[in-house]
Amino acid sequence: MSLSYATLKSADPDTVRRSIRTSQYRGHTAGLCPGQLQANLVILPQVLALDFMRFCQRNPRACPLVGVSDTGAPHIDALGDFDLRTDLPAYNVYRDGVLVDSSSDISALWSDDFVAFALGCSFTFESALQKAGIPLWHIENDTTVPMFRSAIQARPAGPFAGPVVVSMRAIAQARLEDVRAISARFPHAHGAPVHQGDPAQIGIADLSRPDWGHPAPVPPGHMPVFWACGVTPQAAIATARPSICITHKPGHMLITDIPDQADALDVLDLPSLQSS
Amino acid sequence: MSLSYATLKSADPDTVRRSIRTSQYRGHTAGLCPGQLQANLVILPQVLALDFMRFCQRNPRACPLVGVSDTGAPHIDALGDFDLRTDLPAYNVYRDGVLVDSSSDISALWSDDFVAFALGCSFTFESALQKAGIPLWHIENDTTVPMFRSAIQARPAGPFAGPVVVSMRAIAQARLEDVRAISARFPHAHGAPVHQGDPAQIGIADLSRPDWGHPAPVPPGHMPVFWACGVTPQAAIATARPSICITHKPGHMLITDIPDQADALDVLDLPSLQSS
Repeated sequence: MSLSYATLKSADPDTVRRSIRTSQYRGHTAGLCPGQLQANLVILPQVLALDFMRFCQRNPRACPLVGVSDTGAPHIDALGDFDLRTDLPAYNVYRDGVLVDSSSDISALWSDDFVAFALGCSFTFESALQKAGIPLWHIENDTTVPMFRSAIQARPAGPFAGPVVVSMRAIAQARLEDVRAISARFPHAHGAPVHQGDPAQIGIADLSRPDWGHPAPVPPGHMPVFWACGVTPQAAIATARPSICITHKPGHMLITDIPDQADALDVLDLPSLQSS
Repeated sequence: MSLSYATLKSADPDTVRRSIRTSQYRGHTAGLCPGQLQANLVILPQVLALDFMRFCQRNPRACPLVGVSDTGAPHIDALGDFDLRTDLPAYNVYRDGVLVDSSSDISALWSDDFVAFALGCSFTFESALQKAGIPLWHIENDTTVPMFRSAIQARPAGPFAGPVVVSMRAIAQARLEDVRAISARFPHAHGAPVHQGDPAQIGIADLSRPDWGHPAPVPPGHMPVFWACGVTPQAAIATARPSICITHKPGHMLITDIPDQADALDVLDLPSLQSS
């Protein structure tokens, strides 16, 4: 039996993840479990885990780490009750930095030396912007946000290096300050924009030709606003060429049990410390 | 020649670190280089680095990671131009989790497999509280803030485990909200309090008997307020019993080139991303 997106739209995380685990749902997760933090997933062999974690620590806007598994453990206790091998609707498998396969179950590939990293994603601040009445063109038009390799280089760590990839959203001039203030509340989800205005200043020659995603217009009275983007670690992984790397398939995210709109330390720190 | 604290009080970080490096100054760093971020230092063999970094990631209030060195590198480029072997006024050396020595120069102990971690410290939010006109008894009375093992357990990672250690500051009832809001601005320096009010609720039996530091009074109209404390990783290291671990000596911190009062991502992320 297969379940539709509409059926799952208002289900709780356990129900959605069970539907995914049992192959009843394999679609994208945008808009599912509203109010729950969704995360990018990167799985690497332990030999590369320290360098990748350093890469994330050094580039927190692009790679906001929200959870790290124990070596060999397909779960991240702090983020919820899930199995990382089966509970995402689709995975991409890279060998030597090259995409070789997509799958809805990576149990057969799992290794005792894998370390899993969960990284915050833009769904978090986009949801907050929409709640504040700020329209987002790519969502209203059901396209993928335009993403660009910027001229800004990420701080390297071991073999991980590359450009900071940015996503662009056109924002009305009158809402620029609101947008900055709202997204700054979510440092675990890319935080405030890294640039606004002239794309050339960060090495983007042509807004109509994104490196990933679809072009989006910048209407009169609007300004292009750029955020550090979760594709940055993917570009760094392509540079590092690990023997194996498994990620979520874009749009098919890890759904956590963590509230989406909490402040960073309340998302990340001990529940027992939050009751005070 | 030896330099006095008063002489160095308003010197820039380069001057202070040079005075330390050349053994002209070996005192504590509290109040030196006002406006610059100071940090706790933990140096561990690489074999423990991934687990320690996971411990920090899982306990961000107690262990706010602001920088990590490359393996074998005695510097952290993102934080400033310093040599971690010589530029702190005093170090503690632990073997098998036990303090065995203190030193003002660890060059002879340095190993190519060392990884250095810089963790934010309470100086950052204390400075902000004082600027907001909130008096801090331990500073005015030149004592060490009282610290307690709480009943809250840190999230473990590999061999690193133990209680969350908290520091206590007595705050006037009328300023409690200000104190929370101000310290929440600095998630890279312990963030907002983890508890306020009845110490017994977090397992503290007697405020007059701190586990570290000196007792401080809670005057009428004041409330005891507790923050996660940088002694937490020290307690976890005592549990893990690494073959060797080097830390700063309490109060003798790493002075960075980073502005103390910046927001978290502006402290930690690329300077080139901050100009926008």
